[in-house]
Parts: sequence; C-alpha cells; structure tokens
Amino acid sequence: MSKKVVLAFSGGLDTSFCVKYLKEEKGLEVYSAIGNTGGFSDEELRGIEDGARELGVEDHVNLDVTDLYYRNCIRYMVYGNVLKNNTYPLSVSSERIFQAMAIVDYARKIGAQYIAHGSTGAGNDQIRFDLTFQILAPEIEILTPTRDLTLSREDEIEYLKKRGVKKDWTKMTYSINKGLWGTSVGGKETLTTDQNLPEEAYPSQLQKEKPEEMVLTFEKGELTAVNGEKYANPVEAIRKVEALGNAFAIGRDTHVGDTIIGIKGRVGFEAAGPLMIIKAHHLLEKHTLTKWQLYWKEQLGNWYGMLLHEAQYLEPVMRDIEAFLEHSQANVSGEVILKLHPYRFELVGIRSKHDLMNSGFGDYGEMNKEWNADDVKGFTKLMGNYLKIFNKVNGFDVETGV
Amino acid sequence: MSKKVVLAFSGGLDTSFCVKYLKEEKGLEVYSAIGNTGGFSDEELRGIEDGARELGVEDHVNLDVTDLYYRNCIRYMVYGNVLKNNTYPLSVSSERIFQAMAIVDYARKIGAQYIAHGSTGAGNDQIRFDLTFQILAPEIEILTPTRDLTLSREDEIEYLKKRGVKKDWTKMTYSINKGLWGTSVGGKETLTTDQNLPEEAYPSQLQKEKPEEMVLTFEKGELTAVNGEKYANPVEAIRKVEALGNAFAIGRDTHVGDTIIGIKGRVGFEAAGPLMIIKAHHLLEKHTLTKWQLYWKEQLGNWYGMLLHEAQYLEPVMRDIEAFLEHSQANVSGEVILKLHPYRFELVGIRSKHDLMNSGFGDYGEMNKEWNADDVKGFTKLMGNYLKIFNKVNGFDVETGV
Amino acid sequence: MSKKVVLAFSGGLDTSFCVKYLKEEKGLEVYSAIGNTGGFSDEELRGIEDGARELGVEDHVNLDVTDLYYRNCIRYMVYGNVLKNNTYPLSVSSERIFQAMAIVDYARKIGAQYIAHGSTGAGNDQIRFDLTFQILAPEIEILTPTRDLTLSREDEIEYLKKRGVKKDWTKMTYSINKGLWGTSVGGKETLTTDQNLPEEAYPSQLQKEKPEEMVLTFEKGELTAVNGEKYANPVEAIRKVEALGNAFAIGRDTHVGDTIIGIKGRVGFEAAGPLMIIKAHHLLEKHTLTKWQLYWKEQLGNWYGMLLHEAQYLEPVMRDIEAFLEHSQANVSGEVILKLHPYRFELVGIRSKHDLMNSGFGDYGEMNKEWNADDVKGFTKLMGNYLKIFNKVNGFDVETGV
Amino acid sequence: MSKKVVLAFSGGLDTSFCVKYLKEEKGLEVYSAIGNTGGFSDEELRGIEDGARELGVEDHVNLDVTDLYYRNCIRYMVYGNVLKNNTYPLSVSSERIFQAMAIVDYARKIGAQYIAHGSTGAGNDQIRFDLTFQILAPEIEILTPTRDLTLSREDEIEYLKKRGVKKDWTKMTYSINKGLWGTSVGGKETLTTDQNLPEEAYPSQLQKEKPEEMVLTFEKGELTAVNGEKYANPVEAIRKVEALGNAFAIGRDTHVGDTIIGIKGRVGFEAAGPLMIIKAHHLLEKHTLTKWQLYWKEQLGNWYGMLLHEAQYLEPVMRDIEAFLEHSQANVSGEVILKLHPYRFELVGIRSKHDLMNSGFGDYGEMNKEWNADDVKGFTKLMGNYLKIFNKVNGFDVETGV
Repeated sequence: MSKKVVLAFSGGLDTSFCVKYLKEEKGLEVYSAIGNTGGFSDEELRGIEDGARELGVEDHVNLDVTDLYYRNCIRYMVYGNVLKNNTYPLSVSSERIFQAMAIVDYARKIGAQYIAHGSTGAGNDQIRFDLTFQILAPEIEILTPTRDLTLSREDEIEYLKKRGVKKDWTKMTYSINKGLWGTSVGGKETLTTDQNLPEEAYPSQLQKEKPEEMVLTFEKGELTAVNGEKYANPVEAIRKVEALGNAFAIGRDTHVGDTIIGIKGRVGFEAAGPLMIIKAHHLLEKHTLTKWQLYWKEQLGNWYGMLLHEAQYLEPVMRDIEAFLEHSQANVSGEVILKLHPYRFELVGIRSKHDLMNSGFGDYGEMNKEWNADDVKGFTKLMGNYLKIFNKVNGFDVETGV
Repeated sequence: MSKKVVLAFSGGLDTSFCVKYLKEEKGLEVYSAIGNTGGFSDEELRGIEDGARELGVEDHVNLDVTDLYYRNCIRYMVYGNVLKNNTYPLSVSSERIFQAMAIVDYARKIGAQYIAHGSTGAGNDQIRFDLTFQILAPEIEILTPTRDLTLSREDEIEYLKKRGVKKDWTKMTYSINKGLWGTSVGGKETLTTDQNLPEEAYPSQLQKEKPEEMVLTFEKGELTAVNGEKYANPVEAIRKVEALGNAFAIGRDTHVGDTIIGIKGRVGFEAAGPLMIIKAHHLLEKHTLTKWQLYWKEQLGNWYGMLLHEAQYLEPVMRDIEAFLEHSQANVSGEVILKLHPYRFELVGIRSKHDLMNSGFGDYGEMNKEWNADDVKGFTKLMGNYLKIFNKVNGFDVETGV
Repeated sequence: MSKKVVLAFSGGLDTSFCVKYLKEEKGLEVYSAIGNTGGFSDEELRGIEDGARELGVEDHVNLDVTDLYYRNCIRYMVYGNVLKNNTYPLSVSSERIFQAMAIVDYARKIGAQYIAHGSTGAGNDQIRFDLTFQILAPEIEILTPTRDLTLSREDEIEYLKKRGVKKDWTKMTYSINKGLWGTSVGGKETLTTDQNLPEEAYPSQLQKEKPEEMVLTFEKGELTAVNGEKYANPVEAIRKVEALGNAFAIGRDTHVGDTIIGIKGRVGFEAAGPLMIIKAHHLLEKHTLTKWQLYWKEQLGNWYGMLLHEAQYLEPVMRDIEAFLEHSQANVSGEVILKLHPYRFELVGIRSKHDLMNSGFGDYGEMNKEWNADDVKGFTKLMGNYLKIFNKVNGFDVETGV
Repeated sequence: MSKKVVLAFSGGLDTSFCVKYLKEEKGLEVYSAIGNTGGFSDEELRGIEDGARELGVEDHVNLDVTDLYYRNCIRYMVYGNVLKNNTYPLSVSSERIFQAMAIVDYARKIGAQYIAHGSTGAGNDQIRFDLTFQILAPEIEILTPTRDLTLSREDEIEYLKKRGVKKDWTKMTYSINKGLWGTSVGGKETLTTDQNLPEEAYPSQLQKEKPEEMVLTFEKGELTAVNGEKYANPVEAIRKVEALGNAFAIGRDTHVGDTIIGIKGRVGFEAAGPLMIIKAHHLLEKHTLTKWQLYWKEQLGNWYGMLLHEAQYLEPVMRDIEAFLEHSQANVSGEVILKLHPYRFELVGIRSKHDLMNSGFGDYGEMNKEWNADDVKGFTKLMGNYLKIFNKVNGFDVETGV
C-alpha cells in the first residue's frame, strides 16, 4: 500500500507540479488541501479543487479556518494595533500559520506519513510552514520538491506538459495574495528600492470621489458594528469595512522589512479594512486607556506582531501576551467616526462612556475646581526634586546644553 | 533700587497684563524677553517688541535659540522618528524648554531676582516653564500672576484699559501656535471628542492639485538637501520642506494624549515638514539599519519623546539616549523620494550606498547561491527546537489553539 | 453632632498625638483603625487597641486584610520575581496600599467625613496614603496634623503629657517595620551612604550553624508546600519559610533607591521568606518557561514593582500585567531544593514534570539524533545572513573592533 | 603547494585529533593558534604550544587579545551590570567571539584557505565560532572534523594512538574553562537538574575565615583601584579582585539558561571578580544615576548580554548600546566598600562626590526646607488626577480589588 502525502495546494504552478511529482516520481497518494483563512471566494475554491482533481489527487479538501483565524489571531492584532514597522498589518504572513495548523490537523486525521508544500527557498513562508509542521507533528516528514530541486518555472511547465497538463501558466505581471486581513502585491517595482507599484497593480481601483463618513463600533476592543449595522460574526464586519475602503482605494502602501532568513524584503499591499480598523481602535484606546496601558500595549503588540511575522505564533509567550491584551480591552467600547476620502481616510473622533477626556473632571487648558495654582506649584516642586539635586551635584551648562 | 523680573513675553493678553501688573502692583523693573525657537518672522518679532515697549518694559530682548533648538533637540527627534502616540511630532511642546532655558540664561546675565510667565494653571506649558526655571535657577523666584489670580480675560482687559492700554484683545476663533517644528491649532472642536477642526482653521490652505515629487537627502541622519539643493543650515532645509508640503495642505491631524497633570487633552496640528522628514528618515532607516537597531531606536525614541513632552528634557538619561541615537545614524545616508498629493504624501523609495536590501547578496523570494534548501531545513530544525521541546513536554491542541 | 474621622493608627507617638489633637483641637469623633497586612501578632494588636482606647477613641478596629493582600499583591510579586533594583522585595511599601484601602472601606461604612494619618512630609508613605484615599474616596477630606504642624517629637510628647498621657516615648535605636513580606530596619547607619546596619539591629539573630536543606513546592507559581507539608493558606507557607530562614539570619540587605518625591533613600531590611521564595520560584521558571517568557516576565515584573512602590497600585495597567503574569504560570509547578547556611542560602535545583531541560530531546553539549552537523551549518549560515550583508555593505575592522 | 588551515587549538583531545586529521587525511598545512583572552598562564600557554608542535603543526601562535577583550567587551559588561538571567556574568561565552576574531585576523595574515575548530555539534561555542568566521571572512571555508565525523572520545584516542601520539587523555571529572571574566565548571551534576556541583569541583577552595574589607575605586564606571592601589591596566585590577575573592570561595553559582540552539543548558561557575565588581558598580550607580538612567541601563545591559551570549557581538546595535552605556558613566566615580566573608560578600556602602543621596538637599524621612506639607498635597493631588478620573469613569471595588 502506498503512503499518503498531504499537499498544501494553491492551484499555482509550483503546487501543481508537486502533485504530479509526488504521485509519479515518489509513488505517493496525494491528498491536496487548502487552508482557507478567508481570502478565497467560493468560486475560487471550486476552481482550485477542480484543478487538483484534474491533476489526479486522491482527494481534495477545503479546510475553512477563517473563524479560528479571527478568534485566535486577528482579534489580538486589533487589540495590539499591530502594524509591522509602523506600516504593515501582516496581511498575509499571519495566515500561513493557521493554514499550516489546519494542514497538520488534516494530515493526522487521514494518517498521512508526509506533508508537502510548494514554497521556494528564499522567502518567509517556507519557514512558517516547516516550523509549524515540525513542532506540531514531528512524526510526519516534510517534502518540498520545488525547493529541493531548484527548478525554474520553465522546467516545471515542461514537466507538466509532458504529462499532459496543458494549462496556461503565464505569470501574471503582479503576484497577488489575497487574505481576510489584506492583500499583498509583488511585482518588478517591489524588487527595486526606489519605485512604488503603479496604480494598476492594485486589485481595488478608485470608484468614489465624494468623501463619506463611516462609524465603527467596538465592544471590548472587538469590531461589532459598521455604520450602525451590527454583525454577529466580526469576520463579516471586517469584510464590510474593507469593501467601503476599497471603493476609495484606501490602504495602499509598501512594506520594507527584515525577513526571517535575514535579508531585507519589500512588498506592496492594499489593506483598507485592517488599517482603518486598527487606527480607529487605537484612537478609541487613546481616549479610554491610561498612559501606561497605552505604553505597555504598544510594547507587547509590537512584539506579538514580530513573533507572528517570524513564524513563532506557537511560542507560549504569545498566549501570555494575548491574556494581557484581552484584559486591557475591558473599557475599549464606543464609536469611532472616520471620514473616507480618495486614497486616504481621516479619524474624526470618538464617542464612549469610558472616555477619560470629557469626564467633567477638568479640561485641558481650562482652569477648574479640582486644583489651584498652589497645587501645581507643589506638584512641580516635588516633581523637579531629583533634577534639582542632580543639577546641584553635577551642574549643567544652559548655554551649551551639556 | 527696585528688583528685576524677566518676563517670558508673547505679546498676548496674559503676558501684556503681566507687564503692567508686575510693574505697578509689585513695583518691579520688568524686562520682557522672547525665546524664539524659529516660529516667529522678523516682522512678528518687531511687533511683539513694540508692544512690550509700549507697555513700559525697561528693556526687551529677542533671544534666538533656533539653531540650538535644532542641534540639541529637533535633530534627535528626527534620529528617533519621534511621533507622540504615533501621531504628533511634539510640534510646540518641545520648544518651551528651550525658550525657558534662554530666559534663565538672560535672567542670570542681568541679575534678575524673579522670572515670570503667563501660563494658566491647566496646561503643560506651566510645568515646562516652572520646572526648567527651578532646576536651572533655584535661586530665582517664579511669579505667575495670571495663574495665581485666576482672572478672566475680561478682568485682564478691564485692568489694562484702566491703565490706558487700548488694544483689540478679541480672541481669535482658533488659537494658533507656530513653531519651527509645526503649528498647533486649538478651537471649540478640539474641546469635543467627536469633531475635527474645519478646513479653515488651518493656517496653510491647499494651493496645488497636481502631484509633485520631492527628494530629501540625509547624511548620517540629518537632512542636508531638498530636491538636490544643499543647505548649510538644516533649519533652512526644514523650512523648505515645510513650504513644499504646506502648498499641498499636508500634515494635518489631531493629537489626543495624556498631559503632565494627568488629564487627557486634544489638539489639532499642521506639520508638513516634520511628518515628511520623519517618515522619509524612517524609511531610509528601514533600508540601512538592522532589525534590532530599528527595534531599540523605536524604544528609545518613544521614551525620548515622552520625557521631552513631559518637561523632563534635563533628565540625564536624555543625554544617554542622544548618544545612542547619534551613534545609530552612522549609515543613515542617502536619498528618499516622496510624492506629494493634496492632503497626503506617498513614500516612493530610497537610494543609498548603505542599503542592506539590494546588496547583491540575495533577494527576497529569489533563490540564490548563498544558501540551499538543506541549509534552510537545518535552520528551521534548530530554530524550532525550543518549541518542539515545549510542545513535547506540555502539549498543544491544534484544533482549539491552546 | 460632631463629625467622624478615621485615623490610621499604629500606636506610635505620631498617631497617638493625632488622636488627642483631632479630638481636642478639632472636636472630631476619632475612630482608630489598623490595617493589618500580616505584620502584627495578636498580642501586638491588643496592645495597640488598648493604647487607642486609653487615648479616648470612640472605637477601634483591626481590619485584617492579610489574605486579600496575599491574593491581590504578594502572589503577583512572586509570579513577577519582584525585587526593586534587583535587591528589595518591597517589604513594607506594598502593604501601605492595602492598609489604605481597608481604611477607606471602613470610613465609608461608618460614614466618616475625614480620614487622618500620621505620616511625615518626607517619605513615601504619605503619598501612598494620600493617593489611595483621594482616588477611592474623593468625597472624604484627608487630615495630616503631624505633617501640617511640623512638630518635633519633643513637641508631641509635651502636648500629650499636658493631656495626661504618660507613656515612655523614648525612640528605639532602630525603627522596625514588620510585615508579612519582610521587615524594614532604619537607623543612624542607613542615613549614611557608607555604613551598613550592625548585626544587633536586625530582629532575627543567627540560631543555627549547620546547613539544612529546604524544599519548596510550587503549583502554577504559588507556594503550596514547605518540606513536603502542604498549606491550604499560602500566607502560612510564607510564614514557615520566613521562620526557617530567620534561624539562619538569611535575607538581610540594604536597599538604595529613588523615592516618589525624588530624593534617594536607603533602608535596611530582613526578608528571608520573600528572598528565598522569589529566587526559588525564579529558578523553577528558568526550567519551565521559554526565553521570551522569561524576558517579558522580567520587563513586566519590574514595572509592576516600580508602580507598586510608587503608590500606583490602582493604575489599571497593573491589572493587565497581573493577567499576563497569572497566565504565564500555567506550567510553573514543581519542587525547588534549597540549602540554608548561616547568612546565605544556595539554590540546589528543581524537579518538575514541566522541566524543559531534561525532556529526552537533546542535552546541552551532547550530540544527539535530533539534528546533525549539517543542520547546524545551515542554521548558522542563515542566522548570520543579515550580519554578512551588513559587513559586506559597511565593513568592520577586526583589529580595532569598529 | 598544499593549502593552509588555521586551527583554533586548545590542547585538548578534540583539537589534537584535528591537527593530525587535517594534516594526514586532508593534506593541509596546519597552523595552530590560541586566542588568549586572559584565561591562560604563561606556563599553560607553553604547554599548549609544545603539544601543538609535537603533533606536527607548521607553526603555532599565541594571539593575546586580553586588552582588546577588556576594552571592547568586559568594560561594557561592567557598565551594563550584565548578569545573564540575573546570575551569570557570561564568564566564558563572551570570550569566544574575541578568540574567533583573533583567529580570523591571523588566518587572513598568513593567507589561509581554511579555518578549523573542534567544537561539537550540541553547544553554543560552535555557533560563536562559525558565525564570527563566516561574517568576517566569508571567503574562508570552515572545517569541523570532530563535529562532522561525530567520533567518540575513544575513536579519537585510538586514531591518535595509531599515529604515535601517546598522551594521557583521561577525561577530568570536571571540565574547567578558565577565563579572565570567570571560570565555568561542568560535571555530572550539571547534567542533572536537582544537584549542584560539590565543593571539590571548584578550582578555588576556601582559604580565609575571618571577614575582610575591600574597597573598589571606579572612575567613570571603570575599576581603577583596589584597596587604594591604582592599576594602570584594569585587567590587573580585575585579577586582584578575583584573587581576593577566591580566598573566600566567593562567587560560585549555577547558571540555567537557553542555548542558541534552543535547548536548556546548565553550567556551574566561579566568578568572584566579575560578581563583586558588577555588584559594587551597580551600587555606585544606584547612588549616582537617576531612576530612568538605571531603568534604561538595565534594559540595554540585559539585551547586550543576551546578544553577546548568543554570538551576535557583531550586530551593529551592540555598538549603539555601547555608546549609551559609555555616556551613562560620566558620573559613576567613587569608592565602594565591600566586606568579604566565606562564600559570600556584603556591600557596605559608597563614597562619591557625585552621590545624589547626601547632597544636603533633603533626606529621606526627614522634613526639610525645600518643600512643605502643602507642596506634597499639591503634588499628590495632581499626581492622582488620572486615576481619580479613571475611577470616576469606570469605578473600582475596594473590597474585591477589581
């Protein structure tokens, strides 16, 4: 009896090659699987499945982990206002782990001896897949034919042609990777350091010119309503915000950052939903959290994003950080008002019963009854003690500033 | 012989009242002084001086500390990419300290027994002035008539009228505070939490519609040229960038944050120069610094901004942080290309001989000769060791994610 | 009807003076209260109560918050391995907040208009009391006669004598402040910077010379057994460890640190229990937590200690940190073996089923089957990529090290 | 003409095997080199050299980098009070990098095509060597026969015997690794988790029982005198402190930590010098630095230690951290008094003209003229503002503590 391999299948050239190669050269029963984290339409999924069956897989499954991905990851990226290098909402990178976990789960269920993926040897995804597979299923061997053989696209096309697969494998000018939490776009410009992607490279094109207001409602940090319409499933709320933003071509940018393997990489992206949700959420936090809550959330949120990006979602400190982030959201409830313009959005303001600003206690710049001039003088006197002492002991030259 | 007081004079109602009050009620010789950190035109300075002399000061001085302010503060805010709460370039707050230091220096030189300022009792500026005066000149007493007497604007106007001062003190709808590093704008909207300033509140109005490219050149982190034109004094380069951005109405936003006295405050601002310079500088760093340099620069830059905002520029750790930041800039040289659009700008890319991205070593996503598939496998194997062990010892449920 | 004041009463000269002063000069009904956080014996409490009644209080209460203090504070100090400046287990400072909270609660229950305490104007405790009272009961006025009147001890003794209070108020050579989490000791030496407290200043004197082994059992980070004997109440376990350590005169040291009011302070302490528990707990964590868990626990634990020390226990970020710390303890279970010597202890080792060290996966320094030499080479190759690139681009002089 | 290999030679079994193997099996000219970072006596160095020559090397060199190691590394470990996991002064690990850099430098000078080392495949040292060699000399190939062949000690002994090398290779019960900055000790106990090394495993045995005082003088953070005797070379001062401490058997402990390759390791060490110098230095800093200087020094010092331990001394952020640490030492000058007891030491106190404690400004716990009770009340009032607001808006239950 031949052995089973589960192949993480995307329908592209690399994984199509893998189906044939694993079946014919390695003599394995190939089970193709796609871990869907919300980036595929039903039609796309059907197309991928058809492609797999035509290539001769034993079986194909669509593993839908969208809700799990939201609950165990996106939610915390919102709590933590996670933007890699202050720019990138980890649009695709965070999904790979959840796809990998779904694959492992499936491989175990059907008793597979191997897992295969089609990542090349120069990106982050190979690490995300390899690491997750190894940690969760050390007993299953990982196969990566395209990486090991270092074949060119032409080699793969030729191989498939010889075996009767006659699909048009022409490479798109821009490689698009769509997910629930944004879309990454690669092209010849992202391989340079001094050019941005052209307008036409982005999947969403400008449809509206006239500014529109949008109101996002958060409850304990989670997006629950858009323009007053409630969503039982936050995944649907995210899609709604994304659609509203895409009409304004909002959320395009280029991320430059360090890869897990140590080289710098550059990628374009379009992520209207994540960017507007995160910035709105952050504004609500500025009104409802204390200074040190904001400070530590930023530290932990950045770290969370870094480890997530670097394939270490399974590091237990991530669970501890999630506990912190979740706890910090107790009062992060209220409405955030945004204004959408072509290619940009504006944060207008918030309304929240947890707002620490207009509490009737005292207003910035306005004198009030809670304290008087003498109190301020006492405050300043004691606040300055340590610097007065330092200055008395060590001196400071006011003219040179040292 | 009567005693001398140096008054930090702005020409506004509060400090005009102080001149008369300190002279007539307290019998002091009033020396008015303005610490100019780059926010005043020569004409404005002349107007302020004329106003002071008309009010009857013994003498008036314009203390120009613009270059010192750049050298000892702005420079480090650029190195540290300092944006308070990820938004605000500390447009005015950072200037107060340098104005205060100039006042102290002058007061010492003329042998003044008192220093006075006109800040009210509910803002940050009073703390910045008080603290700096106390630390650097503990022997000089601080006088704050407007804070102590808690007079209304009407009271002050009445008092001045009775003494023959007949100026039009009508309050502007929006209070504008212009500095080298941006302009803050306050108005009735900034006292709410759900409204932004209207278009007309901003000093700079949109003048150009057609996008323009702008190239900023940095040498060891300092802005040295704009569109190829070199500037011996970076202060002039900053003004140039500001002017280019203002024509596009770039750099408007609203800052919400914690004040030194513990209440939340909200302020509008317009800072085309600082925002474009900081974002351009940051992009150049993403290409020229390592991951951990970027990480620690962010930690220290944020802290620098926080202490600066909170009147603790004189805390010695600030000097240590400056040493770190300065050292980190050794390779931050090159050109950054931006594209200016109405109300927004785009970072296009960089060119630098210190660029770590296109070094010919290896490209993201492209296989290369520096390592092969087996190397990646070994890397992943050892990188995952600790999580494999953790998982072996403690387990992990792939279905529930815990 | 006269108004009520609740006085935080310790039985010392200052608070005894307060009873008489508040009653006779201010005409208030004085209710004395002691917030016991575990530092008093029943006998001491009776003595304090008798003293209060003799001074003429309306009523006296002993508010026992020991268990609450353990559950809501000590527990987290253990999870976080909190040692201020790497030295001081916050032996007394952390208790003040819980005493203050108990006082507020009592004052509210009896409808008091005032709360009084006897702290002087130069220490941390006044801030801890004032701040907690103000935050939790802004409607209750705070009275601090000894601080306001700046009386000398002689003045207070004279005042009490005149009112018939004839107690011996001779000051002890060393002021001792005993709590559940250690004892602080002040004396003339702690006011210097170059002398330590003499042997006789410490309450616990050496009783044993022969080393003894001690085994502490932790379950999810909490101390549950000492030398195999289980304790339902961790408070009792702490007392047991303290007693065992005191016999060896373990845990003495001097803390030097920054006070809330900005001056440096120095205090001796004796804290055998806290030090041995924290160090044992930390060792267990080194075996059971990952590197990044240890890293972030240290960050957050230090911060927790700092805010706690500085009277900001009620800052909501403290609750978020507690959530992180508690979550991190899931696997911190096992036994820690210590060896007690005169004046010092030694950590011998641990036994835990969550130990990540001897998991059979691979031993440090011993070659094994999980990876081979080629894997290490691949690991090193990719791990070094970013530094190879940096070096290629920017150079490094191996002789000078720059 | 045969090719040249530089072998990092220690005189032990592994590297002795390497000499013969590289010469006879690989046909290379073997140049043995030892990077001495201060851990070898002249006699030991002669013994190692004799051994190398007997094995038939072309040439042998002793590369003395002790001063460079002090200047470019130890110095910063003192500034940063670097103790890995709060315990371990990185006694041996930090030396490897400097040994490796010296080897690279030598290999380049003699035009070697290869560098070889004898580290096994399960420790940190292999990574430290490989990484440094690769980064600094990517053109030189690395050879690691013992790691690649996975030979047992018996195999190696047999191989050498056959080639006429008749040395006694009996393994010592405890492997000792002596350096300038401490000595590491491994043995069967360090492979367990619940046993410590026995008394006899440590190289230094107790020689003195009667406590002695020791005074360390620091100038700008560097140790310059011991008991009043000045040292032009700090390396000699370190040796002196080490000798004084060794007589009391001070500085023994066991380090448990994460290795670079992800497994937990445990090692005994004896480091009287480093521990006393670091703790003394830290105490002096507590008196001369501000709270935030201490805070950030701890962050950066810990990070410095972590990267150093993990073979990333060449990461450029290390140079930035060094700039911070060096700058922070401007006022860290003065004397520190210690008392040495058998197996432990006590920090007695400090004397410094930069001491911020006894500056005559105000003493902890003593009322003074710099501020009064009203000032404290004002301070507390404003300091508590944000928590009063938070509590007013969100509430807090004083009984349950949430």
